Amino acid sequence: MHKSQLAGFIIDCQTDDVGKATDFWSEALGLVAEKSSDPVESDYRQLLPRPEDIHIEVQKVDHPSRLHLDIETNDIDAEVKRLQALGATRVTAIRRWVVMEAPTGQRFCVVKPVRATLREPPTSGISSLTGVYPCPALG
Amino acid sequence: MHKSQLAGFIIDCQTDDVGKATDFWSEALGLVAEKSSDPVESDYRQLLPRPEDIHIEVQKVDHPSRLHLDIETNDIDAEVKRLQALGATRVTAIRRWVVMEAPTGQRFCVVKPVRATLREPPTSGISSLTGVYPCPALG
Repeated sequence: MHKSQLAGFIIDCQTDDVGKATDFWSEALGLVAEKSSDPVESDYRQLLPRPEDIHIEVQKVDHPSRLHLDIETNDIDAEVKRLQALGATRVTAIRRWVVMEAPTGQRFCVVKPVRATLREPPTSGISSLTGVYPCPALG
Repeated sequence: MHKSQLAGFIIDCQTDDVGKATDFWSEALGLVAEKSSDPVESDYRQLLPRPEDIHIEVQKVDHPSRLHLDIETNDIDAEVKRLQALGATRVTAIRRWVVMEAPTGQRFCVVKPVRATLREPPTSGISSLTGVYPCPALG
């Protein structure tokens, strides 16, 4: 069975200056901003949490500023199908990820693994989630 | 000096049924949803991460669905002033927290401590943030 988990949150900023936007968010949150020299990734700046933490990035976008979350997985197709069964819709595929929309209206992305390992299920409580999809998000 | 840090993200949902919204997000993210019996908090459902993680909640809202982040602090007034100096604006105070708007347009909240302790600054890298406000978000 494939694995997936919440990967992080992206601070979408409708701005022409992602560096200035990153200055605000890195100071506001007390997180060091990674320097990016990759022109392909020039719309992004990662804020560095602890290695085991979810990732937080500032992104330049053309639509109104917002936040969005990423779900990381070792099988994007399987995870998209799982989320569609939960009521989400597939919006589009971009480069290495798939954009989806939740039944509650938020857009989010399904991405390749961000951290070295996908987290194992917690040892208690998770059984309440075992319905048609037994712990698929974590298992 | 006061302390503050990123406390969590709130999944704002424009919905009449926060329970149904929580069902989607708890399954999608593989996180157990806390049962809430407090009518004052009936617009919220917390998704339970590990104790040291940031908190993630689903909230019923009247405005369009979005995500927002919380910054937790042991001194809300001092933290609001610090963030105003960074370019954020104070929007309003609600119950126990203050709503602010970032220069990049996102609204976020300054809240009382969510976790038992506010995290200490990381041991490396943070020096790049020591300008006019030496590590205030973490120190």
